[in-house]
Amino acid sequence: MERHFERELEELKEHLLRMGSLAETAVHQAVHAVLEADGGLAQRVVEQEETVNEMQLEIDERVLRLLALHQLMAADLRFAVGVTRINADLERIGDQAVNIAQCAQRILRHPRVKPYVDLPRMSELAEGMVRDSLNAFVYKDVELAKTVLTRDDQVDNLRDQILRELLTYMMEDSSVIFPAFELILVAKNLERIADHATNIAEDVIYIAAGRDIRHHALDRR
Amino acid sequence: MERHFERELEELKEHLLRMGSLAETAVHQAVHAVLEADGGLAQRVVEQEETVNEMQLEIDERVLRLLALHQLMAADLRFAVGVTRINADLERIGDQAVNIAQCAQRILRHPRVKPYVDLPRMSELAEGMVRDSLNAFVYKDVELAKTVLTRDDQVDNLRDQILRELLTYMMEDSSVIFPAFELILVAKNLERIADHATNIAEDVIYIAAGRDIRHHALDRR
Repeated sequence: MERHFERELEELKEHLLRMGSLAETAVHQAVHAVLEADGGLAQRVVEQEETVNEMQLEIDERVLRLLALHQLMAADLRFAVGVTRINADLERIGDQAVNIAQCAQRILRHPRVKPYVDLPRMSELAEGMVRDSLNAFVYKDVELAKTVLTRDDQVDNLRDQILRELLTYMMEDSSVIFPAFELILVAKNLERIADHATNIAEDVIYIAAGRDIRHHALDRR
Repeated sequence: MERHFERELEELKEHLLRMGSLAETAVHQAVHAVLEADGGLAQRVVEQEETVNEMQLEIDERVLRLLALHQLMAADLRFAVGVTRINADLERIGDQAVNIAQCAQRILRHPRVKPYVDLPRMSELAEGMVRDSLNAFVYKDVELAKTVLTRDDQVDNLRDQILRELLTYMMEDSSVIFPAFELILVAKNLERIADHATNIAEDVIYIAAGRDIRHHALDRR
């Protein structure tokens, strides 16, 4: 029985990681669809959304079964509840990737606004945060999780820089207003992806250390 | 013991409703801070965020205690898990209200862009969705929850209308680009608030009917 239970926990973890890797790939592809004006890639991201959605339901189903069948204690209970939270954040990262892919599809219809420099940097940062928050989950690495929290400010700074620059372009040349606005939406979506990675990192700390640090992350303010 | 347990569930519900009412008020005040250019009101919304955050932690703590102390079955388990999900959505609605209040603070520095007609309508719709999703939770009213799902499309249509109009203003007069952009952010935040209300309505259906309809809401597509 105990063995069986351990296997269930292990499977849950594997499922969550597979979900995480799907979400990560979606973000990466969506941003590249924007940067390389690749409509086919954007379409693939949109089509993959359903798989991510189905995985979320399956993972939540597993957690519920676990809670219903076993009287979980302390660490295992935190793990189970933490998994549903991380699950929800990963699904939303998938949603953001779809939003970015849809921006890519609309941007395609306009001439290129400017050489993209900050956007790839912002995307790398956000993707790295998602990756490391999941690595921190796998290895119960609280220190790694904390580095994710501190990186959120860098993303916000890059977003401000991108917004300011694009709004200036819009003021100088009204013909770029539509595509520049889409690029702003891409930056806003990347910001939200970084926020979700931050949530995941907080959940990792909660699972590993038993402390709920949401809203208390001193490092972030 | 059983009595005690019932009381715990009842208290949990009351806490969640208090949290809901705080989030609702924050949205209402934030939007009015925009519409009436009221910087003091905007500041109040920003200051209240901490209360909402603390309530979220307390509610999650209660759910965890409930799960740790009782072997919950079917309906009660769905209720407990549903409450943590609704809790997270309410906290994010509070975050969106703060975002809107911060837009209000920045909009104040510019001359008024245009008479606001669609924005109050969009806000009323979104606020109504939050209110009804919580009412549906209180009365386990699946039919009411379903009406929330169908209203999400109306919000998205209004958002598109507002965006198109504001982008057109920006093209015609580059001096309004900054405040018009802030108004677009307000509309985007209202859209996200409506999304969270939709999530809550889905959770109500899940709690009441035992069906997980996330990603399957036919009415929404």
